[in-house]
Amino acid sequence: MKKGLFITFEGGDGSGKSTQISILRDRLSEAGCDVLLTREPGGTKISEKIRSVILDKENSEMEAVTEALLYAAARAQLVAEVIEPAIRKGRVVICDRFVDSSIAYQAYGRDLGEAVEVINSYAIGECMPDITILLKLDPHVGRRRINARDGDRDRIELASEHFHDKVYEGYLELEKKHSQRIIGIEADRTIEETAELIWEKISPMLGE
Amino acid sequence: MKKGLFITFEGGDGSGKSTQISILRDRLSEAGCDVLLTREPGGTKISEKIRSVILDKENSEMEAVTEALLYAAARAQLVAEVIEPAIRKGRVVICDRFVDSSIAYQAYGRDLGEAVEVINSYAIGECMPDITILLKLDPHVGRRRINARDGDRDRIELASEHFHDKVYEGYLELEKKHSQRIIGIEADRTIEETAELIWEKISPMLGE
Repeated sequence: MKKGLFITFEGGDGSGKSTQISILRDRLSEAGCDVLLTREPGGTKISEKIRSVILDKENSEMEAVTEALLYAAARAQLVAEVIEPAIRKGRVVICDRFVDSSIAYQAYGRDLGEAVEVINSYAIGECMPDITILLKLDPHVGRRRINARDGDRDRIELASEHFHDKVYEGYLELEKKHSQRIIGIEADRTIEETAELIWEKISPMLGE
Repeated sequence: MKKGLFITFEGGDGSGKSTQISILRDRLSEAGCDVLLTREPGGTKISEKIRSVILDKENSEMEAVTEALLYAAARAQLVAEVIEPAIRKGRVVICDRFVDSSIAYQAYGRDLGEAVEVINSYAIGECMPDITILLKLDPHVGRRRINARDGDRDRIELASEHFHDKVYEGYLELEKKHSQRIIGIEADRTIEETAELIWEKISPMLGE
């Protein structure tokens, strides 16, 4: 039986995740993989409802711990309903953000510490990514990219620069701590160069 | 400075909580207390949004752990935004359901075990009730009362009889474990008799 593969993408806003995920999905499909693309928070009917509570700009009085519990709730549903069944069927799952985002944004960014890891251990159980691509970009450069985009900012994008600096530091700590799983890639290259580096890491992991 | 008081009501559906809460609120007000009445899940703008996700009958595929995390998220917001500030001001807070409901319904009813207690410890911090009134009624009698009411049933009310039996067992375990805080009252008496027993427990706790 074919074994599935679980890939997650991480990085600050504006680090180019969406573009790289789209390129990787096409390459995996061309290589004959059955790819499932999903995102956090969201990816199921219930998780999308939770997403709308989390990101609603009107909910500015949301407590840090409320936010962390809501992300974990959306994740628990996504894991049980989508990710685990797909991996069991031998599919390749690419998820735009996963548990490392919670640790970077809530444990580091919102100073919640180890509570975030404990809460999430109940949400995901044994379902950890096989490989995580961390796109590393100076948060100030990322912010400039986000601010240059059209459209409204959500509640997380509107948080302070100091918050986004702490998130970035969190990601660097995670990269050190889980150096086997998390592959950090400097994202100040061209799109093609970054895509090539990602493919070099992913392609050896594909089963026959 | 006047010290506030935090009272919670627990019990299965149909055990008469709403009626007794209403009577107690009136008696406390007559005794000169500044009473704040709230309910779970809900009680803040954000918590009410979470409530609508939890209770929506359409969300029948909700995982037990998702449900537990959502209740904890709604509770965290209610504690920080409403309950703690009111108690600090010396008010008497009556909350219709609190953390014991999560333990009875999710740890016992949904078989989630100790995860529920750990998750909730992050949601409520030190904010535990001073006294909890547990209205004890055979769950089959409670179900008959609920079924006799008009109107739609929510997702929790629609759960199986076996589930509601496990919830009741959970409450009895909690009563034994926290015998100082949780006052169990058999609710098969008249409304007036039950109200009198509750008042006998609460009135000595009121400050001058």
